[in-house]
Amino acid sequence: EEVAKLLELKAKLGGDDGKHQFVLKTAKGTRDYNPKQMAIREKVFNTVVACFKRHGAETIDTPVFELKETLTGKYGEDSKLIYDLKDQGGELLSLRYDLTVPFARYLAMNKITNIKRYHIAKVYRRDNPSMTRGRYREFYQCDFDIAGQYDAMIPDAECLKIVHEILSELELGDFRIKVNDRRILDGMFAACGVPDDKFRTICSTVDKLDKMSWEDVKNEMVNEKGLSEQAADLIGEFVSMQGGRDLAERLLQNPRLSQNKLACSGLSDVKLLFSYLELFQVTDKVVFDLSLARGLDYYTGLIYEAVLTQAGLSGDTLNGAEDSVSVGSVAGGGRYDGLVGMFDPKGRKVPCVGVSFGIERIFTIMEQKAESSADKVRTTEVQVLVASAQKNLLEERLKLVTDLWKAGIKAEVMYKKNPKLLSQLQHCEESGIPLVAILGEQELKDGVVKLRVVATREEVDFSRADLIREIRRRTSEA
Amino acid sequence: EEVAKLLELKAKLGGDDGKHQFVLKTAKGTRDYNPKQMAIREKVFNTVVACFKRHGAETIDTPVFELKETLTGKYGEDSKLIYDLKDQGGELLSLRYDLTVPFARYLAMNKITNIKRYHIAKVYRRDNPSMTRGRYREFYQCDFDIAGQYDAMIPDAECLKIVHEILSELELGDFRIKVNDRRILDGMFAACGVPDDKFRTICSTVDKLDKMSWEDVKNEMVNEKGLSEQAADLIGEFVSMQGGRDLAERLLQNPRLSQNKLACSGLSDVKLLFSYLELFQVTDKVVFDLSLARGLDYYTGLIYEAVLTQAGLSGDTLNGAEDSVSVGSVAGGGRYDGLVGMFDPKGRKVPCVGVSFGIERIFTIMEQKAESSADKVRTTEVQVLVASAQKNLLEERLKLVTDLWKAGIKAEVMYKKNPKLLSQLQHCEESGIPLVAILGEQELKDGVVKLRVVATREEVDFSRADLIREIRRRTSEA
Repeated sequence: EEVAKLLELKAKLGGDDGKHQFVLKTAKGTRDYNPKQMAIREKVFNTVVACFKRHGAETIDTPVFELKETLTGKYGEDSKLIYDLKDQGGELLSLRYDLTVPFARYLAMNKITNIKRYHIAKVYRRDNPSMTRGRYREFYQCDFDIAGQYDAMIPDAECLKIVHEILSELELGDFRIKVNDRRILDGMFAACGVPDDKFRTICSTVDKLDKMSWEDVKNEMVNEKGLSEQAADLIGEFVSMQGGRDLAERLLQNPRLSQNKLACSGLSDVKLLFSYLELFQVTDKVVFDLSLARGLDYYTGLIYEAVLTQAGLSGDTLNGAEDSVSVGSVAGGGRYDGLVGMFDPKGRKVPCVGVSFGIERIFTIMEQKAESSADKVRTTEVQVLVASAQKNLLEERLKLVTDLWKAGIKAEVMYKKNPKLLSQLQHCEESGIPLVAILGEQELKDGVVKLRVVATREEVDFSRADLIREIRRRTSEA
Repeated sequence: EEVAKLLELKAKLGGDDGKHQFVLKTAKGTRDYNPKQMAIREKVFNTVVACFKRHGAETIDTPVFELKETLTGKYGEDSKLIYDLKDQGGELLSLRYDLTVPFARYLAMNKITNIKRYHIAKVYRRDNPSMTRGRYREFYQCDFDIAGQYDAMIPDAECLKIVHEILSELELGDFRIKVNDRRILDGMFAACGVPDDKFRTICSTVDKLDKMSWEDVKNEMVNEKGLSEQAADLIGEFVSMQGGRDLAERLLQNPRLSQNKLACSGLSDVKLLFSYLELFQVTDKVVFDLSLARGLDYYTGLIYEAVLTQAGLSGDTLNGAEDSVSVGSVAGGGRYDGLVGMFDPKGRKVPCVGVSFGIERIFTIMEQKAESSADKVRTTEVQVLVASAQKNLLEERLKLVTDLWKAGIKAEVMYKKNPKLLSQLQHCEESGIPLVAILGEQELKDGVVKLRVVATREEVDFSRADLIREIRRRTSEA
């Protein structure tokens, strides 16, 4: 026996046969979803999809990989995070980085000029994410986009309405939706004396304001990016401004900004946006925030980002400029009027606006909520277990469960010839099955089935004809 | 104008600037799903998932890529079809080839010894598929598996019951489920005098019987694989046999097979299986067919495959041995008791049985059915369009649609300030929206909304309070 133990230990250590010890894990930055996580994921998706459908969206799907060149030149510096496939003799392929670029490719390829669609799928980024905070290399995005030549700010406002509805319905705690406009940012940079060729790089420094203090941001602008201190200070004044429609009106009077055409059209649109948001009854959560920049290259107009403001979850960043702890962005988007044109041979533009939900982070919050809740998460929907009280009743159990399935009832039998009644009842307790249909010699003789309510242990005999009706009645009232 | 045309032509041809002409396409062997295809896909998934849930399954999800070594040595010759990711400095990764190997890895990694789970996700094979027949390089699989140490053939029979239920409910036409057993195949090869080391290769030749005539199969066995003509002829006799429980009983008396222990245990199990299938009421479609081989290495016991037998679709293969044209396999599976053990450091086995639906082919059939049907496939679920009959009513439309959304009604407005009533009604016709809530000066004055039924053009005024109730009533009865 001693020898057997040693041999087992040797096997554990990989042995001396020089064989490679197999690593049992998922790829870095990815995870499996277990049944409990899937039950939560299904609940979140149901809420999200119901909202998208309520707003009249269709859905499409695209392949997980695209031609490499489809993704080239769309993501700026982030391009280095794209997963490429190995060249196995054929096309050069990359895993999709988001759902927006494949959507634009789809529109151009099919010459679609207007559509309202949602797309829920996984995207891939070779990042070094913090998985404890719900960030992964493979993660879901839930996108809603409106493409088409429409009147200003109407579809844009609906996107914000959708963010408001979904975040409210998921009950994730309080949130805020920041909005800004690329044209306002660019106009502001011009007005502050930033040279044209530095707009993008200064913009990406401004984008760090939710993670860095103003001092550090200014330092990066001046010392790393060579901006004059005076220009940086002017930017600093603007990016500390937050407000609503009133702020847009005030800035339209601002001597610096009002000189800039781009800024003015952005500000007028923000004003118009707020008038629609009032009709949509969502202004309570929306803030016009001049520090919002967003990294992606393709935005051309309105941009927005939703952040949870409750300190319920381990805080991601402490945003000094705000009065509450931000737990990170859960949705973001904006207008990208030029992206589809990049795919069209003739450069024909299709104006688009959309929003993307960072749903993994929402899953993480929902999982934590479920953990701390007293209610157990069920991972199946089984309504009744068909059980037997004596031996040799497998055939009768299989016959009865067949009848139940035929009636559309969610039912199980245990895959043993002679399971003990106790272990059958235990299975019900563990997986939350509310009812047991018990067969025994006596029940078979009497032509009845004993229906047991797991929670109360109440037992009543029913004829076969009544059984199905009774199961339906008892499980629909729950 | 002539010049403009020429310039356009030049642009089409890519111009003379030497710039690379962008290729606007999806990767080879992949496709987008448009909204109509998605509507059909959703319907199919709903049927499949409802069945899986009715049978008490949980669901899991795994990443789209695995460590390369996780997939190594699981697929035999098919391994060459695996997509590898580029080595970008990190782990070596491959796209999943099926859902079964990731499932086994998941069980071993989490030390799970029993679970009933389904998994619906895309898998990847660098094949040269016929896309017109619904075969792609990226395609969905819908898998249902039962892992655990249970009594013989009970979970196996439930898998076949599920195939029967799903194919019946999808109304794809007549089908047949062929069953066989790896142990019977191996026993048969031994009994026919096939050398041990040729079992696998002869088995993969037998697997071609649904695409090749017996003469060609025999030819490959004898001339390519060096089998004796006598052995091949003996195999030929067996693989022409089809039947039910009676055939299993007859073969148990067969002087050659009854000498082989493996064959006998397989045959006894097939006998037992049919007794359960009778209780499940599915024997009408199940055939014990000794020519069924199935390619994958990991099967250890019962194997099965469902084929549609109606010549409704462009026939994939003309199976000479059968009386009807086969349109190809739509589901397949079997028992794989050794796979999980390959991932366990101590080699602990977890017996598994499962089935995988080749759902792309089912989509293709459903799409063809939808095309030829008179009913238009709706791609949204919008119940009512909020429209206006006069100009300058955008604000009123936005207010009303906000009320409807709040009440959970699926509603749209057109994103124009002043859309024409005709174009609003046209939009309803095109996308199948049944109701229009029309606002005009008069309605606003009277505090009512005109509800129009698109199909009948009937119009009735309702107070705001009654409107929501009326929309619900009219759309629930549909």
